Amino acid sequence: MEKIPIIDTFPNLFIDIPCLLRDMRAVIPFKKSNAKSRLSSLLTDKEREDFALAMLSDVAGTLVDSGCFDVVDILTTSLIDQDGANIVLTEMGLNEALNEYLKKMSSHSLNEPVLIIMADIPLVTIKNIRDLTASQAEVVIVPGRMGGTNAIFIRDPSSFHVDYYGASFLKHRDIALNNGLIVEVFDSFYISTDIDETADLVEVLLHGTGQAEGYLKTLGFVIEESRGRVGVKRN
Amino acid sequence: MEKIPIIDTFPNLFIDIPCLLRDMRAVIPFKKSNAKSRLSSLLTDKEREDFALAMLSDVAGTLVDSGCFDVVDILTTSLIDQDGANIVLTEMGLNEALNEYLKKMSSHSLNEPVLIIMADIPLVTIKNIRDLTASQAEVVIVPGRMGGTNAIFIRDPSSFHVDYYGASFLKHRDIALNNGLIVEVFDSFYISTDIDETADLVEVLLHGTGQAEGYLKTLGFVIEESRGRVGVKRN
Repeated sequence: MEKIPIIDTFPNLFIDIPCLLRDMRAVIPFKKSNAKSRLSSLLTDKEREDFALAMLSDVAGTLVDSGCFDVVDILTTSLIDQDGANIVLTEMGLNEALNEYLKKMSSHSLNEPVLIIMADIPLVTIKNIRDLTASQAEVVIVPGRMGGTNAIFIRDPSSFHVDYYGASFLKHRDIALNNGLIVEVFDSFYISTDIDETADLVEVLLHGTGQAEGYLKTLGFVIEESRGRVGVKRN
Repeated sequence: MEKIPIIDTFPNLFIDIPCLLRDMRAVIPFKKSNAKSRLSSLLTDKEREDFALAMLSDVAGTLVDSGCFDVVDILTTSLIDQDGANIVLTEMGLNEALNEYLKKMSSHSLNEPVLIIMADIPLVTIKNIRDLTASQAEVVIVPGRMGGTNAIFIRDPSSFHVDYYGASFLKHRDIALNNGLIVEVFDSFYISTDIDETADLVEVLLHGTGQAEGYLKTLGFVIEESRGRVGVKRN
């Protein structure tokens, strides 16, 4: 890959200033049916759905509590209930649904900034949300592991489209740069940690403080150490 | 695990202020022989050593360039050469060597703050170092994945000892809290990303800008996408 200049850091001038006066939207794409299939060796279908809903609650709750958004939308394929969030039903795939959403936003007279954030990152904090939306960049990408994009903040939805799957981090960076937009890469372990596999449950138990962590404990999951390696077991 | 109150965020009052006037030490433990054994299916012994040295260079260079430290020490089991760093030979294991180091520091009249940072986190940035050493907490822990401690900043070396391996994140948190110290957990994807396995090379190629990334490219490593999953291959 050729190195393209990326603005990697901006002074976080607005840290710890609540963003109550800001007009921004957040959207969380969510799919309940057959959620988190890579956890099926450990969790029943029903438990996987409930765990996915608990993670969604953690993310949506953090967005609402951050005070940064006038609307928090959940783009979902089936009806769910989530305090403080607006449910938007869709039957489209991830990219189509989100690009349609961005298009709708950009046709509003406001053309508000939009934060797209994944539903399976229960460690995300209010500080994360305030810091990343306080960036002065035009597009803020928060990488997931293995080339993913776990959150992306788009100041002008009319100037951007998403392209998830594969190395979406690179794709989103290139889409922004090709449109002449200033890009910031936002550095967060908490947001980078999407929960897909058994090993990821370690991170929820170690660093979580919300419903996802509580639900795993209720199911009997605990941290287990064996020969210096850390894992989980279910009691 | 019982929840213990942790101070999770501090306003980063000193962001982007160089720390040239500060008296702090940094120490990087390093072991060259049979380095990075979990990469042996992809790299020869010599390549693994050279890759480990490239990662060490990235970390040591970032520490030196941060301007935060009067001394950058490399605690190593064999003689190596590293610009700007001071080589301290030891035959002890990780915990013993570092605890002896902390003891020596605390017997100095200065008792300077010490940053212990791992040699295999080539994505660490100058901003990371400045932000974490600007914390007002007494101990700043930067978690690695799976319960690790990839960096730890200790304001008063006489009040702390390290205990690596296993869930060292929990152990270090508890050591600090048991000593009545204020703990901050510092959130960084870049520092959390220690490079041990083949999959980790993806992160170096995607996010790296230093010697480790350059060395992998020289060896012919590139990002490969297959059915929406991201990996590496060697040409």
